[in-house]
Amino acid sequence: MKDVNIALLGMGTVGSGVYKTIEMQKGSIEHKEGLSLGIKKVLALEYSFEIPDSLKAKDFYKDILSDPDIDIVIELIGGVGAAKEYVLAALKAGKTVVTANKDLIALHWPELNSAAKQSGAGLYFEASVGGGIPVIRAIWEGLQANEITSVMGIINGTTNYILSKMEETKQSFESVLREAQKMGLAEADPKNDVEGYDAVYKLSIISSMAFHAHVPVKDIHREGISLITQQDIQFGSELGYTVKLLAIGKKRGKTIEARVHPTMIPKTHPLASVKGAFNAVYIHGNIVDDVMLYGRGAGSMPTASAVVSDVIYAAEHKNHRYTTFYNEENASSEVTFENNWESEFFLHFSVQDSPGVLAKIAGAFGKHNVSIASVMQKGESADSVPLIFITHRAKELSVQSALADIRSLPEVRKIVNMIRVER
Amino acid sequence: MKDVNIALLGMGTVGSGVYKTIEMQKGSIEHKEGLSLGIKKVLALEYSFEIPDSLKAKDFYKDILSDPDIDIVIELIGGVGAAKEYVLAALKAGKTVVTANKDLIALHWPELNSAAKQSGAGLYFEASVGGGIPVIRAIWEGLQANEITSVMGIINGTTNYILSKMEETKQSFESVLREAQKMGLAEADPKNDVEGYDAVYKLSIISSMAFHAHVPVKDIHREGISLITQQDIQFGSELGYTVKLLAIGKKRGKTIEARVHPTMIPKTHPLASVKGAFNAVYIHGNIVDDVMLYGRGAGSMPTASAVVSDVIYAAEHKNHRYTTFYNEENASSEVTFENNWESEFFLHFSVQDSPGVLAKIAGAFGKHNVSIASVMQKGESADSVPLIFITHRAKELSVQSALADIRSLPEVRKIVNMIRVER
Repeated sequence: MKDVNIALLGMGTVGSGVYKTIEMQKGSIEHKEGLSLGIKKVLALEYSFEIPDSLKAKDFYKDILSDPDIDIVIELIGGVGAAKEYVLAALKAGKTVVTANKDLIALHWPELNSAAKQSGAGLYFEASVGGGIPVIRAIWEGLQANEITSVMGIINGTTNYILSKMEETKQSFESVLREAQKMGLAEADPKNDVEGYDAVYKLSIISSMAFHAHVPVKDIHREGISLITQQDIQFGSELGYTVKLLAIGKKRGKTIEARVHPTMIPKTHPLASVKGAFNAVYIHGNIVDDVMLYGRGAGSMPTASAVVSDVIYAAEHKNHRYTTFYNEENASSEVTFENNWESEFFLHFSVQDSPGVLAKIAGAFGKHNVSIASVMQKGESADSVPLIFITHRAKELSVQSALADIRSLPEVRKIVNMIRVER
Repeated sequence: MKDVNIALLGMGTVGSGVYKTIEMQKGSIEHKEGLSLGIKKVLALEYSFEIPDSLKAKDFYKDILSDPDIDIVIELIGGVGAAKEYVLAALKAGKTVVTANKDLIALHWPELNSAAKQSGAGLYFEASVGGGIPVIRAIWEGLQANEITSVMGIINGTTNYILSKMEETKQSFESVLREAQKMGLAEADPKNDVEGYDAVYKLSIISSMAFHAHVPVKDIHREGISLITQQDIQFGSELGYTVKLLAIGKKRGKTIEARVHPTMIPKTHPLASVKGAFNAVYIHGNIVDDVMLYGRGAGSMPTASAVVSDVIYAAEHKNHRYTTFYNEENASSEVTFENNWESEFFLHFSVQDSPGVLAKIAGAFGKHNVSIASVMQKGESADSVPLIFITHRAKELSVQSALADIRSLPEVRKIVNMIRVER
């Protein structure tokens, strides 16, 4: 039996889950893994429940960093202030760090990775993406034979809940958001989830892992779901699609595209059945073809499962693994980030119901080499009618140029939405 | 850069895929993992394509076992004859073995596991279950914080293809099977897949891993899909269910139930959208809640992805992990295998359309404490009509007793099917 002495930083939702998990599972982990996990110190401003006074640390440096018995530091403070300071100090001192902090990893990964490599400490962050889903482990230790060419993830539970509910109940975005806020599924200020920031951080981590190249947050295109209308969802549904906020990373040679935006996917796609607060990541490897991992993307216990599994992994493996970023270590391996990706597009216009409008719009598409796969006009009206196009695969910038032309047509009342389509 | 010298035993479908994968991915694996994989010897009766003569081994013992440079033996011969002999010899000699051989692992795991432990060699078999899906790694290295209480898998592609096609095209089992045989998706003698034997072997492996207790093939209940009728599928569909051949393992305390049989699951269940030749395993852990892994369950390249990923894993980790079977090592940890499990049941009778028959059948259920959740009678006829019951949760043996009583009722023409329901 090997003793593993742990310091826990932070005792909020996830911290409490980790504390409980270690207490609950102690016996079974001893039995199965031959490891005796013990929390030796907890550093927190507030405690969700009472813990023995002897465990309470007053000072990170004095009570944790300088205690040679502490092997592993679990960082669940969040943010990049104190969390970054403590994590870097721990890594430099050779203590392995397990964290659920997506901001910290997405923003400071190369720096943390180097510090860990230098001292030989481990740096683990399974819980930073997809809650309890072991997706980072799968990429790192299950699909290594592959070059991964694509990841597509539903990695934000709040937006997935809102979009699922909008489809199910035919309510507006605003009304479902208010409901989600009441249920505690969306924050009072929902911007971080709803506008896609949370998904961008997670995509930075998962696509960097998948492509072995650092994909910084600043190189990820971001659009949220707040402009998705009930009509978009209904029209999409009639055409066989469902709308999801997808985090998409693709790699071809040394070119990477990374984008978070509302996306239409066929209802038969495995990601389409991922409902509510669940998350899933769909991965394409050049040898394995398609793989999907699905599970609870957030919550105290699912996230604690990932944290404690990382602790066990770190304690069992003597040689820690580090991420190889080609583009950080070798200037000749520099990757380029693509902003003119190819996709199909769902285009939703509100137009005057008059002869010739279809021809004019089709003309604008033709001029920019955007080819149309299907058109749907809904209803008749003296005023305006919805007109929907699905394009064949086209370049993003060509579609943007066509939209600029279409916007200036007098018969076009509004470009209601442009939603990219993936299969 | 670390050299990894490999001997490949067998050069059929998977062997060829492994050979090609190592050739194709050599550069990328060197770059990402710091490992130079090289096939040093191939032992095969026939070669799917030409390989250099210098690689061809004539004798396992002389050319492979006694070559101290060979670190890892990949066994893709299949079966438990020569494969078992070579694997055991390699493990005893301290050579790590990677295999895709489900029969070998399911039937001789404890013996192989002990041999590996004794010499310190590694024993890896990700490819034996679920093709390219990294499900064994996920259980071993991603969900260790959990006690896994349930696994439910679609782990046989042939039966999943047949059931998906029956639902889609409304054809009979026999007609879809013939089509699958023509397409090479089912064997000329389809018994191994269609009657559930293949799934039993895989369930033995995956439930043993999940529960840390050896679940022998002989303790797994097995039923195939050959008696599933088009009517079963249609009636199930009307009630909101889809039929899948599920491999189910559950653990409560020291009691394990393990069974492979056709199962109705709600159409909204994530497993319901697993179509055609795809596989998926749905896992419940006490901390993480539900997790599902999905991907290609067979095929040359997907299986090679698992094999080569195992090779990389084995080469990177100095201390190999072994499976802890409580029930092999410690008599007081003996588990019991349950045959009187609880489930809901879909029961399909063909009955004479006469007054009183419903009351008699309901009486038989009541007598054996089986409570009915819903009843559906289809059509009217002078002769016989289908009568469908869905029960509440009930004990297997109670339902069997009720069915014995019902079989003897003169109004009951036939018990068409009894299909268990999981959620």
